[in-house]
Amino acid sequence: MSHEELKSLAEEIRQRIVEVVLKNGGHLASNLGTVELTLALYRVFDPREDAVIWDTGHQTYTHKILTGRDEQFHTIRTFGGLSGFVTRRESPLDWFGTGHAGTSIAAALGFEKAFEFLKEKRHVVVVIGDGALTSGMALEALNQLKNLNSKIKIILNDNGMSISQNVGGLAYHLSRLRTNPIYLKGKKALKKVLEKTEIGFELEEEMRYLRDGLKGLIQGTNFFEALGLKYFGPFDGHDVELLERVLKRVKEYDYPSVVHVVTRKGRGFKAAEEDPTTYHSASPVGKPKRLSYSELLGYTLSKIAESDEKIVAITAAMADGTGLSIFQKNHPERFFDLGITEQSCVTFGAALGLQGMKPVVAIYSTFLQRAFDQIVHDVALQNAPVLFAIDRSGVVGEDGPTHHGLFDINYLLPIPNMKIVSPSSPQEFVNVLYTVLANLDGPVAVRYPKESFEADLNSLFENMREIDLGWKVVREGKDAAVIVTGTLLKEVLRIPLDVTVINALTVKPLDTHVLREVAQNHRLIFTVEEAMKIGGFGSYVAQKLWEMGWKGRVVNIGVNDHFVTHGSRKELLEMLGLDSKGLSKTMLTYIKVRSEEGKA
Amino acid sequence: MSHEELKSLAEEIRQRIVEVVLKNGGHLASNLGTVELTLALYRVFDPREDAVIWDTGHQTYTHKILTGRDEQFHTIRTFGGLSGFVTRRESPLDWFGTGHAGTSIAAALGFEKAFEFLKEKRHVVVVIGDGALTSGMALEALNQLKNLNSKIKIILNDNGMSISQNVGGLAYHLSRLRTNPIYLKGKKALKKVLEKTEIGFELEEEMRYLRDGLKGLIQGTNFFEALGLKYFGPFDGHDVELLERVLKRVKEYDYPSVVHVVTRKGRGFKAAEEDPTTYHSASPVGKPKRLSYSELLGYTLSKIAESDEKIVAITAAMADGTGLSIFQKNHPERFFDLGITEQSCVTFGAALGLQGMKPVVAIYSTFLQRAFDQIVHDVALQNAPVLFAIDRSGVVGEDGPTHHGLFDINYLLPIPNMKIVSPSSPQEFVNVLYTVLANLDGPVAVRYPKESFEADLNSLFENMREIDLGWKVVREGKDAAVIVTGTLLKEVLRIPLDVTVINALTVKPLDTHVLREVAQNHRLIFTVEEAMKIGGFGSYVAQKLWEMGWKGRVVNIGVNDHFVTHGSRKELLEMLGLDSKGLSKTMLTYIKVRSEEGKA
Repeated sequence: MSHEELKSLAEEIRQRIVEVVLKNGGHLASNLGTVELTLALYRVFDPREDAVIWDTGHQTYTHKILTGRDEQFHTIRTFGGLSGFVTRRESPLDWFGTGHAGTSIAAALGFEKAFEFLKEKRHVVVVIGDGALTSGMALEALNQLKNLNSKIKIILNDNGMSISQNVGGLAYHLSRLRTNPIYLKGKKALKKVLEKTEIGFELEEEMRYLRDGLKGLIQGTNFFEALGLKYFGPFDGHDVELLERVLKRVKEYDYPSVVHVVTRKGRGFKAAEEDPTTYHSASPVGKPKRLSYSELLGYTLSKIAESDEKIVAITAAMADGTGLSIFQKNHPERFFDLGITEQSCVTFGAALGLQGMKPVVAIYSTFLQRAFDQIVHDVALQNAPVLFAIDRSGVVGEDGPTHHGLFDINYLLPIPNMKIVSPSSPQEFVNVLYTVLANLDGPVAVRYPKESFEADLNSLFENMREIDLGWKVVREGKDAAVIVTGTLLKEVLRIPLDVTVINALTVKPLDTHVLREVAQNHRLIFTVEEAMKIGGFGSYVAQKLWEMGWKGRVVNIGVNDHFVTHGSRKELLEMLGLDSKGLSKTMLTYIKVRSEEGKA
Repeated sequence: MSHEELKSLAEEIRQRIVEVVLKNGGHLASNLGTVELTLALYRVFDPREDAVIWDTGHQTYTHKILTGRDEQFHTIRTFGGLSGFVTRRESPLDWFGTGHAGTSIAAALGFEKAFEFLKEKRHVVVVIGDGALTSGMALEALNQLKNLNSKIKIILNDNGMSISQNVGGLAYHLSRLRTNPIYLKGKKALKKVLEKTEIGFELEEEMRYLRDGLKGLIQGTNFFEALGLKYFGPFDGHDVELLERVLKRVKEYDYPSVVHVVTRKGRGFKAAEEDPTTYHSASPVGKPKRLSYSELLGYTLSKIAESDEKIVAITAAMADGTGLSIFQKNHPERFFDLGITEQSCVTFGAALGLQGMKPVVAIYSTFLQRAFDQIVHDVALQNAPVLFAIDRSGVVGEDGPTHHGLFDINYLLPIPNMKIVSPSSPQEFVNVLYTVLANLDGPVAVRYPKESFEADLNSLFENMREIDLGWKVVREGKDAAVIVTGTLLKEVLRIPLDVTVINALTVKPLDTHVLREVAQNHRLIFTVEEAMKIGGFGSYVAQKLWEMGWKGRVVNIGVNDHFVTHGSRKELLEMLGLDSKGLSKTMLTYIKVRSEEGKA
């Protein structure tokens, strides 16, 4: 294929991505940024032979189209369709599943060593964004390359931002590299160098020569070289021809190398180029815009912070996703985005809380898993006042198994000093935030799903008040009691059975007073939660009921011991039997058994 | 105090540390390395006013002695005595509790911002080792300093090794800085510079001048400067006078700074200087040396690896602690120590496993918490064959709450595809390793305590064979059934009650066949585990018994919902009611209730 043909192929792919993403939703901007990079990469490395690992696999739509999935591409992110991320279940050319940022370098090291042991000659290539590179896990693995005599080739896909604006000294460093005169002079100068290299010079030598000459002018230090890596770049990430020549050279080098490529998020799609944050993850066009729990967090915190100057908000490159960008607009000096550093965010929050501030750490449930140790060691052990705003808790939808928030109840429950609250409605969410922040004296986790709703902010704020966080009996019935935590309450209330329904606002501590009452009045108790069943809320209730010496039967309903695929939230809740129909069916079975036991 | 007096104070402190640690056990080498550094630090910064955060607080014995705990110092690491780590419960001058590596910089950032909000003028100082610096969390936080306009002063305590020999490109970089002629010329040249600075020059200017001049000669890059930090050093960390002058200067600077200090682990105690790894954590003198589970892991893996070339072993700066140094000696090419990078170790292992190797990731239970997300996302979701050798599971002893391994069952249980095994004896441990490695087709966690025992390796290996991992009824009784997992089995077998005892080798999956049998024959079932009770093994059994529609009573015995202090393993198990006496007492209570219910 000639370079002209490549250009038109790139254009074709770009059109296809825009078309499908505007229909299905998905990561638009990042995928438009990597079209040429992917083309160049696969002209030099063979993804059937060489392990190419895509960090945070939401930049891989071109990869999918090129590796046999063009025909199904229109199904991406739909129930039963292609995954929006890299996954080994889908193709052997998806070498390593990636959904969380920063895993690629450690995985690449593992592949490289395995190939050495197995005497397989394969190249190992990583494509990692500048945002993912700031995560602790990527940095610590980067630091291991030299020591392990690695030859891994790292393509640093630098678009000057991660999901939101990138942060940190490394970002500053990269931007200095980008404004390097070599790069500013553009492709021309570089091409000239590359042409020269073909008549006998080593690319590396040439680059070093140029860099050294300009060093005083530009800067004296290079982060990657300090770690013992070879650094090349920066190069224009939308010039297939240039990239191909660079990669061909680098491919043969016997040392770990970083190829710094500058791309533009949203490239070729004007709206996305101009506003890449909004288009980072696009919603399908045409869906009516409603208020999400995330936005409600942003508005509510902004409101409460007006009269409480101790409140500060922290996130890990999710300012928009968590709604904190709203808070940032209103209280810029009290907002912190530390980049993709969930671990640091939590410990940063712990220290702020211990000194008398009221830190709100807002992180998606699935990403907060990164900070489990910090929650135990830095927050809970020191009983530090920190409010964890756990967004996208439960079934998250189209992003699938790497992004569901189904473990949060389970890993937070065993931690001493930790309180866990699952509001069931927008109003309750607002009131819980208000109540918890008014009384923050230790760690509290508030978890809420990726859901939107019609709501009147004014009315929500008018009714904002301190509430009792205990459990409430919201309906009385005879056949059984249903203790439900979180927004599944609305599903439970639609069940056409004669059951008592308890809104369990707190997952921990349990409201043993209400639980005892319920136990006295019922012989059959269901627990319902949007979390893994093993070690979940229900298991905690069951344990407590055994302790009380209760003689009835408790049935835990939650997510069974399997990972959950992708699809809409509605489709998945139905599949899991957690919608009113599924819940009703399960409960009816047990109610019948019970009633027959009663007769017998 | 004159500098002569300081020298003799240092000597005095050093004597005291050696004396107490040889008696109580503890971190000897690291504490001997920081005597002068602590003295100099507290002559410049006031720990009552300035927040000094000690990364991985096992280098703080001098700090403790100087901050009002000299008298109790002899109680360190004993039950009811001083903690071996920094803890806020002990002193307001322990600003932030630290036991796990790498948390200090994020915490310091939190303190600094809190002081800004509260308009308190305090300096924030971090003391961090070169090992802790290679952890992802430290690196990611370091990268945030510039962006947050921090003025934090980081004292990099570089002894050229973490617990074991340090690894990675950064270590190489630091060693290049150490061999910098400025440093090699020794104190003299530096003093001269410092004297000059007092008559009008800024230290920074001088240092830069010197560095620039020598740059070509030495190296062109500085890791810290690439992140936007100021770098000073390296300085001799045992010269109080020099350190004091340097710190005085740096104190006034308005930007984030790294002061690189070179110390010698074990300084002043010959045996520890010569063998700092052994003396990293010293055992009390005089205790007879027996075989530990850690050593048994090393020997067993070495043995199995002789006939299985797929086995590789990975650890995170715990080669000695996990016993893998034994494996390293026998199979050096199949051993990987990636430094303090638990996250990377796990993902590295996942990739190796997916390519057909049999990776054993050996990490202490408490530190594996760092890799929870990687276990979910990289290992379990891809069902990667990885054996997790979870050392120091359960109550760990003298290191206390930051080091107990009480959460592992709880956070591993809800993860699909994960198998968890708790052997009850050395022979079972050997056989489990053998069996799991012969059949490794997904993630398996094998957990074992910090315990030693008398054992004959030859006999253990003679009896090494593939075993059934199901549950075993090891004793029959009438009053109740006790299902116990792990080494607490030996405590249960000492209980003077007429109970059936089941050795539950697997925590997950449950052996539902045996469980059903037990349930049929008993009306009262106890579960016993060395883990948090909420969401633990017992809660899983209880949930299953409810599902079976069993009508008896189950009582979960484990660790109640509190953090556990430090002390000997024996003392703590007794305190927790997990020794035979405590277990017996609890069980008797329920057996009596049951028997009275039977009469009624």
